[in-house]
Amino acid sequence: MPAPLPIHDPDDPRIAPYRAVRERDVVGRGERFVGEGEVVLRLLLAPDCRHEVESVLVSERRIEGLGDLLAPLPPETPLYVADQAVMDAVVGFHIHRGVLAIGRRAPALGAAELLASLPERALVVALVGVSNHDNVGAIFRNAAAFGADAVLLDASSCDPLYRKAIRVSVGASLITPFARGGTGSEMLDALEAAGFETLALSPAGAVRLGDVERAPRAALMLGAEGPGLPESLMARAKTVRIDMAAGFDSLNVATTGAVALYALTRG
Amino acid sequence: MPAPLPIHDPDDPRIAPYRAVRERDVVGRGERFVGEGEVVLRLLLAPDCRHEVESVLVSERRIEGLGDLLAPLPPETPLYVADQAVMDAVVGFHIHRGVLAIGRRAPALGAAELLASLPERALVVALVGVSNHDNVGAIFRNAAAFGADAVLLDASSCDPLYRKAIRVSVGASLITPFARGGTGSEMLDALEAAGFETLALSPAGAVRLGDVERAPRAALMLGAEGPGLPESLMARAKTVRIDMAAGFDSLNVATTGAVALYALTRG
Repeated sequence: MPAPLPIHDPDDPRIAPYRAVRERDVVGRGERFVGEGEVVLRLLLAPDCRHEVESVLVSERRIEGLGDLLAPLPPETPLYVADQAVMDAVVGFHIHRGVLAIGRRAPALGAAELLASLPERALVVALVGVSNHDNVGAIFRNAAAFGADAVLLDASSCDPLYRKAIRVSVGASLITPFARGGTGSEMLDALEAAGFETLALSPAGAVRLGDVERAPRAALMLGAEGPGLPESLMARAKTVRIDMAAGFDSLNVATTGAVALYALTRG
Repeated sequence: MPAPLPIHDPDDPRIAPYRAVRERDVVGRGERFVGEGEVVLRLLLAPDCRHEVESVLVSERRIEGLGDLLAPLPPETPLYVADQAVMDAVVGFHIHRGVLAIGRRAPALGAAELLASLPERALVVALVGVSNHDNVGAIFRNAAAFGADAVLLDASSCDPLYRKAIRVSVGASLITPFARGGTGSEMLDALEAAGFETLALSPAGAVRLGDVERAPRAALMLGAEGPGLPESLMARAKTVRIDMAAGFDSLNVATTGAVALYALTRG
């Protein structure tokens, strides 16, 4: 663990990346991202996390209890410590968890490159137009819980390293490999070229989820709540439905994904 | 549809129940509750909703498009109309949906009474210590989607008619019958007396979810994220687990419930 660097002045230039967190969320951070809380920092420092920790900012009251967590932090990585009031003034709101990190993204992967790196038997989640941060975060959490190998996102889906998406994913978006970019159609091209069968979840799906015989390489495709997946993509995939009660066929998209991942992964 | 009553003054005493919505959320509203948005109002006016609409407040720009929705409103129910600025001033924040209703709760049901009213084959969701509004709302949404017959909540679980819980449930908490009160142990007493087998979801459950043979009357018991269900309750139930990937056994409680409801209801 590096020697802690005390910060007394909220305007200290060393902690500029932590300033005005919510305003920067809107603007974006380029190759940087913000991780919040102990659980997220633990995953960010795990050996299978491809991203790097640029620096850590911890409140004084938390530093003592975090020894184990901070032990793997490289000695050259700045570990800033501030009292809660200074930390809150920098960030712009009360940061009750008292633990923040600035991460630096690993080089982005393309869909084809990511799919090529997966084993012969693999399960991928493919998102088209899922722009809500909570939903993308929850989908990564569920993907990790059921051991999905990777997540693909089209360009209109939300960045999994957006602050809130990381938090809702409980850090899963830091460790589950993903590729983001292009159109849903290009994503399907890449899946087909890599030998994946694509299962498109839709209330009007042709096959009941419980009747799906999963191919060794399978992709679960989900669209945004409301519009769902475009017809043009559904026409190229096996469409799958989850039977629901009449009159209330409404599951959240992340919940739909969890139910499908359960059905496709149980022994 | 009643004749709309125009409101020009945010201090008009007729719309007092709509004032300072967030502050009242904290204090509570006794036998009243607030419903937001078109989908929620539609369910509130549905024949199977046990609760009553006391009044409706709609923004001027929305009123024309809502004719179908407002048609079943009894002629004696006040339908207030205000321009968006007045509505925002009353409520205390920008109410972009432009549709609010004050509801009046149906008489509360006891657990025993509710269970006695259910059919011979019935599925109930039982919550102990689930105090988060989002989670309770999402659990009602999932319960309705999979056709669960009722929800039981102990006294420490959140009120399903709390504003945010109704919204997250997409109105399901208005139509799925529930009983709230007492301890988890008293809830189990009532379930046992009514011939229900209780399945307690836990990561350390003895039986895999996929191996459960469901009894005709079954209750799915869920605890709060983090602490989970108390040992004393698990000892009285059949404990059930959802197998997850090593190293990331973390599903949200509402998601856990959805996966279990799927497994217990698929034909």
